[in-house]
Amino acid sequence: MTTGAQHILTGLSDAGIELIFTNPGTTEIYFVDALGKVPIPRPVLTLTEAVAAGAADGAARIGGQPTALLLHLGPGLANAIAYLHNAKRAHSPIVVVVGDHSQGVANQDPPLASDIDSLAHTFSKAVIHVTQHEHPRHSAARAGYIAVDATPGIVTLIVPSDLSWSETNDIPRLQRPPRTPLNTPESTLERASAALIEPDGTAVIVGGDLLRTEGQETLERLTRCQNLTVWANTFPARMDRGYGRPRVRRLPYLPEMAIAALENTRRVVIAGGANPVPFFGYPHLPDRLVTEECEIITLTSDPSAATSSIAALMPNAEELTLLGSTHIEPATKDDDNAALNPANFASVVAELLPADTIVVDESNTLGLNLEEATANAAAHTWLPALTGGAIGHGLGMAIGAALADPERRVLALIADGSSLYTPQALWTHASETLNITTVILSNRSYGILNFELHRLGSEAETEGAKRLLSLSPPSIDHIRLATGFGVPVARATTVGELIDALTSAWLSRGPSLIEAEFF
Amino acid sequence: MTTGAQHILTGLSDAGIELIFTNPGTTEIYFVDALGKVPIPRPVLTLTEAVAAGAADGAARIGGQPTALLLHLGPGLANAIAYLHNAKRAHSPIVVVVGDHSQGVANQDPPLASDIDSLAHTFSKAVIHVTQHEHPRHSAARAGYIAVDATPGIVTLIVPSDLSWSETNDIPRLQRPPRTPLNTPESTLERASAALIEPDGTAVIVGGDLLRTEGQETLERLTRCQNLTVWANTFPARMDRGYGRPRVRRLPYLPEMAIAALENTRRVVIAGGANPVPFFGYPHLPDRLVTEECEIITLTSDPSAATSSIAALMPNAEELTLLGSTHIEPATKDDDNAALNPANFASVVAELLPADTIVVDESNTLGLNLEEATANAAAHTWLPALTGGAIGHGLGMAIGAALADPERRVLALIADGSSLYTPQALWTHASETLNITTVILSNRSYGILNFELHRLGSEAETEGAKRLLSLSPPSIDHIRLATGFGVPVARATTVGELIDALTSAWLSRGPSLIEAEFF
Repeated sequence: MTTGAQHILTGLSDAGIELIFTNPGTTEIYFVDALGKVPIPRPVLTLTEAVAAGAADGAARIGGQPTALLLHLGPGLANAIAYLHNAKRAHSPIVVVVGDHSQGVANQDPPLASDIDSLAHTFSKAVIHVTQHEHPRHSAARAGYIAVDATPGIVTLIVPSDLSWSETNDIPRLQRPPRTPLNTPESTLERASAALIEPDGTAVIVGGDLLRTEGQETLERLTRCQNLTVWANTFPARMDRGYGRPRVRRLPYLPEMAIAALENTRRVVIAGGANPVPFFGYPHLPDRLVTEECEIITLTSDPSAATSSIAALMPNAEELTLLGSTHIEPATKDDDNAALNPANFASVVAELLPADTIVVDESNTLGLNLEEATANAAAHTWLPALTGGAIGHGLGMAIGAALADPERRVLALIADGSSLYTPQALWTHASETLNITTVILSNRSYGILNFELHRLGSEAETEGAKRLLSLSPPSIDHIRLATGFGVPVARATTVGELIDALTSAWLSRGPSLIEAEFF
Repeated sequence: MTTGAQHILTGLSDAGIELIFTNPGTTEIYFVDALGKVPIPRPVLTLTEAVAAGAADGAARIGGQPTALLLHLGPGLANAIAYLHNAKRAHSPIVVVVGDHSQGVANQDPPLASDIDSLAHTFSKAVIHVTQHEHPRHSAARAGYIAVDATPGIVTLIVPSDLSWSETNDIPRLQRPPRTPLNTPESTLERASAALIEPDGTAVIVGGDLLRTEGQETLERLTRCQNLTVWANTFPARMDRGYGRPRVRRLPYLPEMAIAALENTRRVVIAGGANPVPFFGYPHLPDRLVTEECEIITLTSDPSAATSSIAALMPNAEELTLLGSTHIEPATKDDDNAALNPANFASVVAELLPADTIVVDESNTLGLNLEEATANAAAHTWLPALTGGAIGHGLGMAIGAALADPERRVLALIADGSSLYTPQALWTHASETLNITTVILSNRSYGILNFELHRLGSEAETEGAKRLLSLSPPSIDHIRLATGFGVPVARATTVGELIDALTSAWLSRGPSLIEAEFF
């Protein structure tokens, strides 16, 4: 006889889940007990659910298998939603286990009761209730299987605590069902084939496995077709890139720049990416990045089928002229004594980046030069944090990335405003002794919002408005914060100091933090 | 011609809203602009929406008028939900303004789009969309009027950004509608009247204005009826208490103790409180605090009508014998060199508490002695943070309490685990120069969960399970964290050090933080 909580952990393990990030409460105490007795999944404690959600997403993006969260009722789930929203947009397979009230108490409206289902449906591809009608091991495995099936995403598993604590017989594992086949309509395939050999006006938006090592050959071929423009979305889930890998540019963040980039586009083929849409609407800009007449041909929005879907069409494009490889100018170097700016910061990162590093990118306005500068850096994986635009994701995501592949070093580039949503993530960097080098890019303001305010015109830039977008006074001392959470620190205000701090970080194992000052 | 954002701020002000707590994004930039140009409502920047939500709740509980939040799309709202859940349980009147995508962009499913309505309905008594069909000033005022109407609660106002930026004519204010009358059925009034004069077996659960200064006379009379037992819920929204004020005990948190407290109860009269229900269900305990046969008579669950509803019945109880005032034993004092423990901590707080202090209580397991010890302390206001059980509320709530009544000092008693959900609240303590003395009660573990694990039996207390409930290693240095956010600090490990630290905090204006170590 085994508790429901133990059965559920076994079911998660059946589905390939090895890591479970948690901030547990009383309704999860039966899971805490069970987690102390099984080797897999391995639990990782975070100080807030927001950090756990970011970590689950990071692990899913790097690990190639689903990951799990264990959260406490509606409020614990709510604290995770912003970063589960980012994970949903990244198509990360995650099982969110929510410990609910026992059924005998739930109907009395206790203080912690809330509408968990409504919260869960906002980011889940499926919501499963553990009930007496299915063995808990099977419910959990089923959640994991659905999470990775086409199109991958988040499944929420709601567990009343009486079903966590009650004991039932063991049962054999639930077999993995066959994967839902990709069924792109024949007419779409024909339109896509035709679009790929049009002499001009075709853009291809690539994503998913086309941007990973496994899609590299197909992507290389695609980017060399001179009749096509190939784009990634502004914030794709993951890009394996750098020296020796095909180069794909990301659509610009600002709509005016994205509109210019797509100016002559008459048809868009989507292969594992998302439709080109603006991040926000503005009073004096069009609502669309492409014209209403522009044809959108969605080969697949499933990131795990991007390569296969377009590779099947590539023979039809064989007559096309191929471009040579792109040559990238090495960045000019600044003197060691130069104060940090976005350009020399990006150059230093690009030059020093160790091969195979995972870069978690939430550098925001101060990181605008990074994409170009690192295009030819040592081969690496780039993880844009803001797939769904929810700020504060990066410090948590680094945790998951580091745990999913402990052999690889993680460099987390985090804007100061972003870092202050989830500073307590640093404690888990330390408690798990993770190989994460965090760089806080500090300008002591919400840079993007100051930019937006500036666009409204000088009349909007009142002292009161600017004060609302400023992170001082008092100035926040990121060095003290990191030390308080147990992470070793360094400060860099010049190119030379940044070089020293990064070099020294690479030489040691475990976490460290560098506050890079841009003011 | 005035922008929609400016009209909305005017409408909030029409409804008596003076404070708006925010962590804005691009869709709120028109509000940032407008806030820079109007004196009221006054904006307060927080580093994460969770802190803003706690602050809005604290201001609503102290200020006697509704407060507002300004949040960014679904993810910004999501970050606030856990503490809006606490605010909902406290019946705090709050208008949550959510900046949404412009209508021309929303239908293209941009990265930040999500189901805001479903999120909002989980904690809102009403959700209002600003549309072209109602003037924005009126929509905003209507939201504020609904928030304070019976029963008070949260109203979410969703504003597409094109309606924030577009300009329209001015319009006169919307008149406040008459308050919805309290309509307790005659039969309920009769049952309650009868129950109040039963010789025994009647418990009265009081809340709302009965626990505030304005309900003091009625409450005094009620607590002196020797045939009645009078309780507050475990975590009421607010209690004005201490020397010279009637004493009401709170129902115990642990269900076994609450069951014992209510053992002979055959009928419960609810006057502004909530039904007596257990916080959680347990395998070896009953699901209910009172028997199924126990009669529940809800005079009102509206906290603003608690006093009037029961005062009207009191003449019928005139024949009852009244008890004398309760005598409270002064706490025994420990030597200055004694290490801190929950008992001597509570004694020091009770003895040193300045009159009229607002105590924000999220002290959890280390604060178990506080209720008894402070019952006869100088008159004060007690704000239990965990009205809805969502941990991490207190540091934010202190901000709102301090701003809603700047003449009063705030003492925030926060368990270390709780403090780590929202440490960035300390920055707003400093940036707004608030009179908040924060005491972190540090035992370096999730005390309540260790207690729950212990209750499962020794077999559950594996190293792995205990590790999941421990806040070290590494040990978190709250002194460094507070200093990093700009708050002056002190450490206390003994009675004498705590006395010195509190005394010195009372002598200065502005924020400070004391780490009280219980290990």
